[in-house]
Order: sequence, then structure tokens, then C-alpha cells
Amino acid sequence: MKIAVLKERQDGETRVAATPETVKKFKALGCDVCVETGAGITASFTDAQYEEAGAQIAHSASDACQNAELILKVRKPDAGELSNFANGAKLAAILAPHADKDSLSAYASAGVDAFAMDLMPRITRAQSMDVLSSQSNLAGYKAVVDAAGAFGKALPMMMTAAGTVSPAKVFVMGAGVAGLQAIATARRLGGVVTATDVRYAAKEQVESLGAKFVVVDEEAMKESETEGGYAKEMSKDFQERQAEFVAKHIAKQDIVITTALIPGRPAPLLVNADMVASMKPGSILVDLAVEQGGNVEGSIPGETVDKNGVKIIGHRNVPGRLPTDASALYAKNLLNFVTLLTDKETGKLAIDWDDDIVKGVALTRDGQIIHPNFAEAPPAP
Amino acid sequence: MKIAVLKERQDGETRVAATPETVKKFKALGCDVCVETGAGITASFTDAQYEEAGAQIAHSASDACQNAELILKVRKPDAGELSNFANGAKLAAILAPHADKDSLSAYASAGVDAFAMDLMPRITRAQSMDVLSSQSNLAGYKAVVDAAGAFGKALPMMMTAAGTVSPAKVFVMGAGVAGLQAIATARRLGGVVTATDVRYAAKEQVESLGAKFVVVDEEAMKESETEGGYAKEMSKDFQERQAEFVAKHIAKQDIVITTALIPGRPAPLLVNADMVASMKPGSILVDLAVEQGGNVEGSIPGETVDKNGVKIIGHRNVPGRLPTDASALYAKNLLNFVTLLTDKETGKLAIDWDDDIVKGVALTRDGQIIHPNFAEAPPAP
Repeated sequence: MKIAVLKERQDGETRVAATPETVKKFKALGCDVCVETGAGITASFTDAQYEEAGAQIAHSASDACQNAELILKVRKPDAGELSNFANGAKLAAILAPHADKDSLSAYASAGVDAFAMDLMPRITRAQSMDVLSSQSNLAGYKAVVDAAGAFGKALPMMMTAAGTVSPAKVFVMGAGVAGLQAIATARRLGGVVTATDVRYAAKEQVESLGAKFVVVDEEAMKESETEGGYAKEMSKDFQERQAEFVAKHIAKQDIVITTALIPGRPAPLLVNADMVASMKPGSILVDLAVEQGGNVEGSIPGETVDKNGVKIIGHRNVPGRLPTDASALYAKNLLNFVTLLTDKETGKLAIDWDDDIVKGVALTRDGQIIHPNFAEAPPAP
Repeated sequence: MKIAVLKERQDGETRVAATPETVKKFKALGCDVCVETGAGITASFTDAQYEEAGAQIAHSASDACQNAELILKVRKPDAGELSNFANGAKLAAILAPHADKDSLSAYASAGVDAFAMDLMPRITRAQSMDVLSSQSNLAGYKAVVDAAGAFGKALPMMMTAAGTVSPAKVFVMGAGVAGLQAIATARRLGGVVTATDVRYAAKEQVESLGAKFVVVDEEAMKESETEGGYAKEMSKDFQERQAEFVAKHIAKQDIVITTALIPGRPAPLLVNADMVASMKPGSILVDLAVEQGGNVEGSIPGETVDKNGVKIIGHRNVPGRLPTDASALYAKNLLNFVTLLTDKETGKLAIDWDDDIVKGVALTRDGQIIHPNFAEAPPAP
């Protein structure tokens, strides 16, 4: 089987879908790998390193795609790239199908079987292929590094002959994968860290990282959690009291990092303009949800907004700001997924279309849209 | 006594010589403080905060200087500013007299008694006034934050479902105040840290921060140290072996931070172009000595230079990249110094010109250059 690894063409995309390390592993699996020249350069991987690992270097995307049965990318291909793919080729990438449903018809028309890595089911067996987790983890780290870079003070307490520098107060909103890594990183740097989440179950994780969980009425939240395993929606009264409590808390923070995302839907607004205005000049907000509409009122994708001395940082593609590590982990996610699709004896594709993982990510097959969330008619029997 | 605090005019200077906190302390000392409007804005201190602390706000530098007996600044005044100072006024700032000897004649001609805070003697009693220490400490922290910001990987080891991200290797050259804080910060962020210094005595400090001291021949270095308390110059043979050892070490590093400064002289070259070329693409060098000629061959003040994927970061005024904390500590250094110059009963200046601290920093007095390192003729008896 020939695997093609293409250079990313989307503006600001610094990552690459394979690393010299995963190329070696693909070779050991019995695959041939062809990397488009310069594909790894923004992630600090050179053509020479790929060649040393056993890859061929192709001088264009169309050369790389020639006879390729599997194409690996970070972002979805544009029309020009897609025209290079052979009929029947497989594609694995972060395809964001919710944001662009027309792209599915394009894959189907081109006869490309497309796998959306971002739809990976959150089951134990698929953890090693979970690109949202691997990338969110790095985004959580980088959010704190970006905040520390923009902040006019140091994060740790420093005791000097001239006096003591007090530690920064860091508040992390949303304690998922990104939030927990942000908490861990801010703690490493010596910040005094608090965090919140709509799930009471997050409290223990937050506390295990040395941060304080911020909740107005712990008993009420606890009760809601224990009735049957799932959290029921909190009462309107609780929500209002919690919002007021959080608003007061934000006014005292130096750094606020928001990480609340709902897959396939706009991000919830967590910090409104009044809360931003309540913060001291020099304070920093980092909105990790800025590309999904934002958790912070006034955040703008790709910009740092200044509101009376309070900075709202809204970087796009935060994992791509750590291109080497983000590529390394994404490439391993892909390697694990491709290994699942491959017969270990022959090194050829042997896809079990009934596997829950494959069913979760497969968008198109043999010219048809087959994913249950996107198929207009049920697929042919 | 009236104290004037001026807005800095030098390009890229973000710091300010007083904070609302030190204004309060000056008021308690019995001084009046007048702050030029906007003086604190780049350090996130507003006019309103200074007013609340008891300062008057002046609408121009000349208004602020009117009848001021003491002028506080970060950088030396330009000719325009100096013309506002009253004859007999005192000035305290970072005056860098070695770099601009003509400025001393200007202070003398203007009848300004100038104190160079950067000449503060390194004696115990003056530690709380030591601006080089307070600013270097912050520079060491910021060097690591800048490196982490430019580095395409995370610093800490991360164990994820997709695989382990290995920790960054960080090498700190020079274990003075800046170097030790860089070591501490890189360790906080989870880096694997090594360090070196020409003084064997630094080994214990480096190790107490959890880093490894890099030396080719520990016995030879140890012996040189113990003979009489002062380190004698190491043999040519030792120096060559150490240089070769360090060169091999650098080739394996992800991040190198250089901090070697010799007051009043050009910085020593520690990393030559061959060593830079030996590093992996994506590696980072931060040259904290770039404004004094640089420790790294090819570093340029105010620029980040890319050498085949290796970045050499050469920010000017690194403490000024943490303007709030850098101002806070510098302002405390000044407060402690001014307190020494002030009669606690009357709140008036009462300078003991025979005090070692005053003798160490005083450049001019009564129209004459009096500092022994700069006076052309001995001062009048």
C-alpha cells in the first residue's frame, strides 16, 4: 500500500500528518510512504529526515498522490488537491464535516472514502486515535504560555531583596482535556489557580492538580450529580447565583483561560463585556473557543483585543502554535488508526466497515455519503 | 521635598520609576510626588491609581519638574528633559555612564546631581537597592517564557494516550542572578535543565535548583577554586577541553539561554556559529547579552534570527517585557535608595556624601563630575 502525506495548504496550518517517526512505523507495517516536499518544514521536520526514515520525497502533491491508496492530511483537501486523488483512494484528516457539509458530496463524487478523525468515538479502544484530545491537551498548555508571554508580570511568587512579587491568580473555565492541562501548566509556573466546570465530577480532577474548584453552592451541585449518574440541568436559581459568584471571582483574576466547547455547536458565552471591564488593567484573557464563536465577549479570531488595558487573546489553531509536538501526536493518532485499517500479514488495507471506530469516522464510501449524521438517504444495503 | 516621576521617552522603554505603592510610601516619608500624565500606562498603572495613592498628575514633563528637588526616571534623560531640571536638582535613574561619558558633563553643566542606580555597590546593605539584580531576575524568568513561546514543542514531559512527549532539554550558560532564575523557571515548566558557569561555586546553587552542572573536569575546576578563595584563571588546556565539551552538549539541546555579562565591557562570546549550526531545526537560543554585543554569534538586538530553522532570540530590554513587575521592583529599589538620602524627621534630603552607597552611585555634584571612575581631575577638596 502506498501512503501519501501532503503539505498543508490552509493559511496558518503549521502541522503535518506524518513525522519521520511514524514514517518508520508505516514502513515496518509494510507500507510505502511518499511525502510531498516541504510538508514538514513548518513543524521542523526536513525532507532529509523523512528520507532517512524511509520515505520517498515527491516534488508536488499530484506526484505524491500518484497510485496512493491512502492520503494523510491535517486539514480537509481543497478542490485542487482532491482532483489529484485516485478514484477509490482513502483519506484521513480533520475534516470538520459539521462546518462544511458540501465537502462530503465532493468526496463522494471524487470516489474518495473519507475518514474524519475529529469524529473519533470517545471509547477506550479509540483513545490512542483521539485527535481532539491530543490537540486540546497541547492547546491547554500553550494557552498558559501565551498568557505568560502577554502578561506584564511573572506568574510565580518571587522573593527578592527589593520585595516580594506576588503570584498571579489564574482562573480556568472548563475542566476538560484543555482546561486540565491549562491548570497543570499554570500551577507549574507558580500561579494560584482556580477552575470551574458545569460537571461536579471535575472537582476532584481540578483539586488533584492543586487548584481550587469554584462553585457557589457545592451541596446543590453535588446532589444534581448523584441522582442516577448523569447530571441533571441545574435550577435557574443556581445558575444565576453561580454566574454572579463567577463574575465576582473574575474581577480579582490576573489571567482567565476559557476552554468551553460543544462539538458541532457554537461555544457558550462565559465572560461578558461587563466581566471583562471589571478586570484590572494588565489582565489577560485567553479564549480557546474563539474559532467556534468564543467564550469571551469581544474576542476576535486571530487577534489580541485590548479593552482598557485588558487583553483578550484569540489565537486561531492553538495546537498549530506547537507544530512539532502537535504533529507528532496527531501523526501517532493517524498511525494507530491506519494500523486498525491494515492487515498485519500483507500490509494491505483491510477495512472492517462494521467496526465501531470505522463507523464513527467514515463519511463516504464507494461514491456515497454513509455517515448516519450526514447521509441524506440511508446507504444502499 | 517634591519628587517628580517622568514618563520614559526612550524607544521601547515600558517601565516607570514609581508605582502607586511607592508613591504611598514616599507620602508617608513626608515627600510630595508629582507624576507626569501617562507615565505608568505601559506598565499598567493609570493616572487614577497614582492620584488615589496621593500623587499629583502633571500634564507635561516641565510641569512635573517645576520645583522638584528629586527626579526619578528609568533611563537617562535626553537633552530636552534635562533642560527642565532645576539647578541643584537630584536625579536617580539607570544612567549607563560607561556607554555615554558625555552625559556626565551634561549633568554637571546643568547643575544636576546625578545618581546612577546601575553602579550600586554589591554590598549587603545595598541589596535592596540593587537594580541590576532586580531586573536580571525578571529577565531570567522572561527568557524562558520567550523560549517556550517560540518553541514548537511543550517543555514538560506529557504522557498522553497517543504517546509520550519528551521533556525539553534546556541549557543555561552563566549562573548569575538571571541564569539562576532561568534555571528555576525552566525546571518549573518541566524542562531537563543543565547549566554552566566559570565559577565552580555556582555548582551548588545550580544543583540546589534541580539542574545539572556541566563541567569537563570537575577536579581541575574544584582545585582552582579552593586555593585562597578566589578562582585563579583555568589553564589553556582546561579551557579548550571545556569548550569542546560544551560544544557537544549544545548540539543535543532544545533551548539554550545565555546570560554572561561583564559590567562595562563587551559580553563574552559563548556560542559560535558552528555550535548554532550543530543544533536541530526548531531549537531556540535566547541571548540575554545581545545589547552588550551578545553571547551568541549572529544574534541581533531587537530581532529573532532564523539560522536553518534554529531561532536566535535577541530581545532588547528584557525586563521591560514584564513592565509591571520590573517597574514594581525598580521603584522599590529607588524607594529604598531615596529613603537613605532622606531625613526621617523632616522628610527633606539629607545626603551623606561619605556613605559608601552614595559614593558608589554619585556621578556629579555641584557642577562637577565626582565619581572616581569618571572624574578627569580629582574633585575639589
